[in-house]
Amino acid sequence: MTTYKAINLVARPEPGPITANLFETTEQEIPQPGSGEILVKQTHMSLDPAMRGWMSPDPDSYIPPVALGQVMRSSGLGEIVASNNPNFSVGSRVMGMMGWTEYYCGSGEGLHPVQEGLDAEMALSVFALPGLTATQGLFGFSEPKADETIVVSGAAGSVGSLVGQLAKADGLRVVGVAGSDEKCQWLTDELGFDGAINYKTDDLDARLSELAPNGIDMYFENTGGPIQQHVIDHMNAHGRIIVCGMIADYNAAVPSAGPNWIPIIKKRLTIQGFAMPDHFGDVPSLVEKLTPYVMSGKIKHRAHVIDGLESAIDGLNLLFTGGNKGKLIVKL
Amino acid sequence: MTTYKAINLVARPEPGPITANLFETTEQEIPQPGSGEILVKQTHMSLDPAMRGWMSPDPDSYIPPVALGQVMRSSGLGEIVASNNPNFSVGSRVMGMMGWTEYYCGSGEGLHPVQEGLDAEMALSVFALPGLTATQGLFGFSEPKADETIVVSGAAGSVGSLVGQLAKADGLRVVGVAGSDEKCQWLTDELGFDGAINYKTDDLDARLSELAPNGIDMYFENTGGPIQQHVIDHMNAHGRIIVCGMIADYNAAVPSAGPNWIPIIKKRLTIQGFAMPDHFGDVPSLVEKLTPYVMSGKIKHRAHVIDGLESAIDGLNLLFTGGNKGKLIVKL
Repeated sequence: MTTYKAINLVARPEPGPITANLFETTEQEIPQPGSGEILVKQTHMSLDPAMRGWMSPDPDSYIPPVALGQVMRSSGLGEIVASNNPNFSVGSRVMGMMGWTEYYCGSGEGLHPVQEGLDAEMALSVFALPGLTATQGLFGFSEPKADETIVVSGAAGSVGSLVGQLAKADGLRVVGVAGSDEKCQWLTDELGFDGAINYKTDDLDARLSELAPNGIDMYFENTGGPIQQHVIDHMNAHGRIIVCGMIADYNAAVPSAGPNWIPIIKKRLTIQGFAMPDHFGDVPSLVEKLTPYVMSGKIKHRAHVIDGLESAIDGLNLLFTGGNKGKLIVKL
Repeated sequence: MTTYKAINLVARPEPGPITANLFETTEQEIPQPGSGEILVKQTHMSLDPAMRGWMSPDPDSYIPPVALGQVMRSSGLGEIVASNNPNFSVGSRVMGMMGWTEYYCGSGEGLHPVQEGLDAEMALSVFALPGLTATQGLFGFSEPKADETIVVSGAAGSVGSLVGQLAKADGLRVVGVAGSDEKCQWLTDELGFDGAINYKTDDLDARLSELAPNGIDMYFENTGGPIQQHVIDHMNAHGRIIVCGMIADYNAAVPSAGPNWIPIIKKRLTIQGFAMPDHFGDVPSLVEKLTPYVMSGKIKHRAHVIDGLESAIDGLNLLFTGGNKGKLIVKL
């Protein structure tokens, strides 16, 4: 094969599902890396909820949108097949923002080596954006304390499942919120969560009373939606809320209203929004924090793997319908 | 006069205005202070928005409600007319939570001396709850920086007017939000705010664009209401929001919805709720912080004085209709 495929973003999304007409697949000759460059054959691409935001121009966003006509932005993992850069050796693997493409050719700036022996799915599910985000969000703004109760929304998602396991390893009571009985069962039976709530079918208030009998000290917000108000009603004084995602609202034409702020005063809550690009400088210390949890076998993951570059387009929608079971990865 | 009046809370408020039937005025003989006790003739009582919360049992509140049949809680200032306590001398003045009563008799615990020569209205408007709250809220959670822009809601209120003046003294651009042209004019002409918005008549979005052309770095929230969403739309990345009051919603049967949380992520906002009772241990350092601003003549205040103990009942409603102009004080 002397050609490879890549997918360019050619239009901005409207509210609602992602559609194929926003993209254009190109096919071109595999380039020879120039001086100081490397060529990477990408084997796995990560699909993440933040990607929807990257497709839309928004003056408030923390990262510029993907320009129209450019390769769609994504992180991934691949093998170096040619190198004119002494920092990268042929045959080794790298991870980073390579985009929706079968081959990456460039300086390698921003690409990081993948530890030998580390499974590619594990690498993208834990030691990439999800694990860094979970570690920064859980530990970076306030100290979770043993015997506190944390509620995690989007708990079966790539970030939420790690947040819950990290908190559980530190002795917190962990309650997950997810969108199916199967996901809830995975959280409690496989990941060891103390409880799980199916936000589509459970009585949210009653279940929070039952599963968080001492109130909620921390809330890790990945979704938005009706659970938000109920969690706030159950928060303890001086509770901390980490706002990482609002996936229930990203596709909405009109975002849903939020909770009234009176409880923020009465309970003296701290609400902290964050986005990983602000913390990319801390990646080494985040990896250092995360590694012992993984090495001691306390962190499980599951990957939802779809096949082929072009499966990414429709695959993105799984993140917003909750159709994925685990970290969504495209295998190339 | 050998008798004095006091007002007890005898019923819990419903949503809507405060009504006279919630209270009962008692008249009794002026007591002689017992061993270790003092007798204070109260001359001025402070009326504060927080008092409505003190009237309602609420498991989430930061302070227990006033028990039915007990004197209504409030802070005030008075003169010591008899003392069996060596820490308090007859003729000197004290400030503290004496309640709705013409005379206070007790150990004096929690009462603080009033600096000689300090005007009583100034003492209650600046060196009491409003000033401590403004100082803690503005400086206690994040550092306001010169040339940043702060928006203050309830800006003509007892706390908001101080927050704005403190911020102005520190070189910030200060925009106040208030409920009448007269209040707005007072903010800009008398207190030196850079701009003021009448939330009842102005186009909130257009006025924020005009008065905060570089976006908003800090928002000091005293009111809630529609301004909240507009301010969030104008916040800069890493903006800080201090939630001190939600006076627009305290009397509501159903509190209004809040803003969606997507901007909290996109702008990585920090939202901090607080209530002064958590910080009563810091009062000495708060007074120390506040004093130089006052001494250098940078802090103006205005008091809205009503007359007689029983004027307090209907007077409370002024705080929720915005009918008061300045710190609401009952002169006894």
